[in-house]
Amino acid sequence: MASPYEFIETHRERFEDELKSFLRIKSVSADSTCKPAIEEACQFVARKMRSAGLATEIIPTVGNPLVYGESLLAPGQPTILVYGHYDVQPSDPDDKWESPAFEPTVRGGNIYARGATDDKGQMYLHLNAIEAWMKTVGKLPINVKVIIEGEEEVGSSGIGDALSTLKDRLSCDAVVISDSSMYAPDQPAITYGLKGICYFEIYLDGPKRDLHSGTFGGSVKNPINALTEMLAQLVDPDGRVRVPGFYDDVLPLSEAERTSIARLPFSDEEYRSEMGVDDLFGEKGYSTLERRWARPTCDINGIWGGYQGEGAKTVLPAKAGAKFSFRLVPNQEPSKIESALKAYLEEIKPKGISIAIKHHHGAAAVVVPLESPTVRAASRALQKAYGKKPFYIREGGSIPICSSFKEVLGVDSLLLGFGLNDDNTHSPNEKFCLKDYHRGALAIAYLFEELANKGDG
Amino acid sequence: MASPYEFIETHRERFEDELKSFLRIKSVSADSTCKPAIEEACQFVARKMRSAGLATEIIPTVGNPLVYGESLLAPGQPTILVYGHYDVQPSDPDDKWESPAFEPTVRGGNIYARGATDDKGQMYLHLNAIEAWMKTVGKLPINVKVIIEGEEEVGSSGIGDALSTLKDRLSCDAVVISDSSMYAPDQPAITYGLKGICYFEIYLDGPKRDLHSGTFGGSVKNPINALTEMLAQLVDPDGRVRVPGFYDDVLPLSEAERTSIARLPFSDEEYRSEMGVDDLFGEKGYSTLERRWARPTCDINGIWGGYQGEGAKTVLPAKAGAKFSFRLVPNQEPSKIESALKAYLEEIKPKGISIAIKHHHGAAAVVVPLESPTVRAASRALQKAYGKKPFYIREGGSIPICSSFKEVLGVDSLLLGFGLNDDNTHSPNEKFCLKDYHRGALAIAYLFEELANKGDG
Repeated sequence: MASPYEFIETHRERFEDELKSFLRIKSVSADSTCKPAIEEACQFVARKMRSAGLATEIIPTVGNPLVYGESLLAPGQPTILVYGHYDVQPSDPDDKWESPAFEPTVRGGNIYARGATDDKGQMYLHLNAIEAWMKTVGKLPINVKVIIEGEEEVGSSGIGDALSTLKDRLSCDAVVISDSSMYAPDQPAITYGLKGICYFEIYLDGPKRDLHSGTFGGSVKNPINALTEMLAQLVDPDGRVRVPGFYDDVLPLSEAERTSIARLPFSDEEYRSEMGVDDLFGEKGYSTLERRWARPTCDINGIWGGYQGEGAKTVLPAKAGAKFSFRLVPNQEPSKIESALKAYLEEIKPKGISIAIKHHHGAAAVVVPLESPTVRAASRALQKAYGKKPFYIREGGSIPICSSFKEVLGVDSLLLGFGLNDDNTHSPNEKFCLKDYHRGALAIAYLFEELANKGDG
Repeated sequence: MASPYEFIETHRERFEDELKSFLRIKSVSADSTCKPAIEEACQFVARKMRSAGLATEIIPTVGNPLVYGESLLAPGQPTILVYGHYDVQPSDPDDKWESPAFEPTVRGGNIYARGATDDKGQMYLHLNAIEAWMKTVGKLPINVKVIIEGEEEVGSSGIGDALSTLKDRLSCDAVVISDSSMYAPDQPAITYGLKGICYFEIYLDGPKRDLHSGTFGGSVKNPINALTEMLAQLVDPDGRVRVPGFYDDVLPLSEAERTSIARLPFSDEEYRSEMGVDDLFGEKGYSTLERRWARPTCDINGIWGGYQGEGAKTVLPAKAGAKFSFRLVPNQEPSKIESALKAYLEEIKPKGISIAIKHHHGAAAVVVPLESPTVRAASRALQKAYGKKPFYIREGGSIPICSSFKEVLGVDSLLLGFGLNDDNTHSPNEKFCLKDYHRGALAIAYLFEELANKGDG
């Protein structure tokens, strides 16, 4: 009988074909016209789980449905909950993609498609690992629950709402999530910290109709001018957030952690060149990795208003708007930030303008302890799959559900990322290295064995 | 034989039908896909001029062609040059139009269409007046030249370039332009001052690709954040421009003019309510009419960047941009403002961002003397057509060619506006009152007679 590890090796082609089919499904959760694709992606995941040998069911929520599967045939062994998501970010700007976002294309050992790394590829490799155990050994060496949601990119409200109801069903010793990056090519990492997020949209209303900027300019506040004035007051030029009270609860980085981050191989100059900018940016007094991983930030994610077409139009528009988000660090509470922001915006709002604010989603940051049997097992599994010890890193991205798992299930999440920083998540030409797709499955297959192996040391 | 005035009265229906046909032509000069419509509008005007009895020709330029016509059969009488434009502003946002922008529709005595008042309707009424004289009296009582251009909405570069070549051909005693507004319904006005304009577009480049705002936020300057910071520094919150040197050459309003403006019937409260805002806005120390007519302003006319779609996308975009314009007052030089602005933008540009600036067009402000035979003749003509003395007003809009006429031909422009301030120029639901379309033609027909009538007093 082949081992699970051999099974993964010999089924590379089929696993890649399955991933391609999955990536063709345009499951953009932010776009309500993609509802049928959301349903299709959900069914696709359910079929794979069933064929991998999990008892599978689709769980409806207030939003997009969850796919749940389990195999609990290892009494006395630990139980893990694998979490992932089948929804993806919007693909625009589509004209910047070298191959279409929803026609997966392999170039240079990478598969290019929206969702390749975030999170379809990284999520699916867990199902490949489960299938490998099931179809060789006939069962898993530990107890595994899998929950895959369809709204991670828009705030996880469906699973968030269902979580307390599902509490007993999802009870576990640890959550395992692959939705982040390695430190560098061939250098695996365990991510022990994630930022939180608060995402907002602001709408400004000025005059009741678009006006001629010559005839009316200087008498009526222009909503775009007002918008730039307000947004410019969100952060100072170095990126320090100006919302009163924003930093009140920020947990400072410990000296030990700063030392450990400083020890990682990182070149500002290489990073600057890779980003294609003439200067890096950010809050004074912190290194680039510290700013990216452990300091709160504010980015405007989109802005619009007035005439965006070719040539000149002398309009004083009736409306303008923007999307912006804060990344939060441990101990900052999204709901407190939301209240502080709303009060601040009302305070700095110019006369002659009315505003409306929409809160898209919020999530607290998480940091997990490095000293745990789960982390140690993961370290050994990564070493077996990659032949190298993992680095311990943090990440600027947010996985909103992590803090909910901690709160409701009382467990930490193990973040094993198999992507790379240049995978273009949320950008055109998103990719995932196929080698890591398979090494990732291998690492997860080893993780099951390592978690079962109590010789922890 | 009927008089020209009776002719205008009895041909109302045909004149309205002709205007409708003219308005159906989508001659948007800012949109290069509208080139065929530009050509069609040009030919349409030429046909009307010929049928009205003018010797007509189409004059090519570096841009869109000019239509020129003349009737110089009144030796010893003054010569006027009628100027207008056949191009129109873009129609977007199209979903805000109650009837389609290029399907002229009559509602409540107004004709609704892009270009109805600016400037197709106001320009065409001159041709109706000419036709009325030609087809009744058989000739005009003065010498009339007509020049109609197709790039007024994008900076008049074609006619601007051709003007010195055409200098002798266009020589005249005064230019007459109808491309502005009356003071109020049934209250005609002579506009003696226009603002100038400088229109710019700015493009910001940050990282070489769109980035995930979680993974990269706080390390790379976000071009939208940078854009809002830069644009917020263009003007202070009260609308006073912050570009160094911007006010250096501004000619202050005389006490006499301030008194005369203050005497006009105007209610801030009515205006505020008409605009649909909770407060008016603008530079301290000046009345609303002063700010609109005689103080420089800065408006952002369009802005874009990042994700504008539905829902949340956590992107740190590679690019952002905006269109903005300054309205200038007498004595401010557009080229000086352009240099000052460019230097200022380079100075306030954040690190990590590169910028490019495009100057769309510039024009100086104009003020014409009220004490001239032309203005007196116009006053009498308006009184005959409307039964009321005109008000003398200024206007915040710009007609870039006016300052060129002064410079090259050495003559002032007589600005006889027949529109209304709520005509929605440059906005959805642009309209023109049909009563004023005909009264305007009547006023112009009277103007010809009054200019010929030397009993000036």
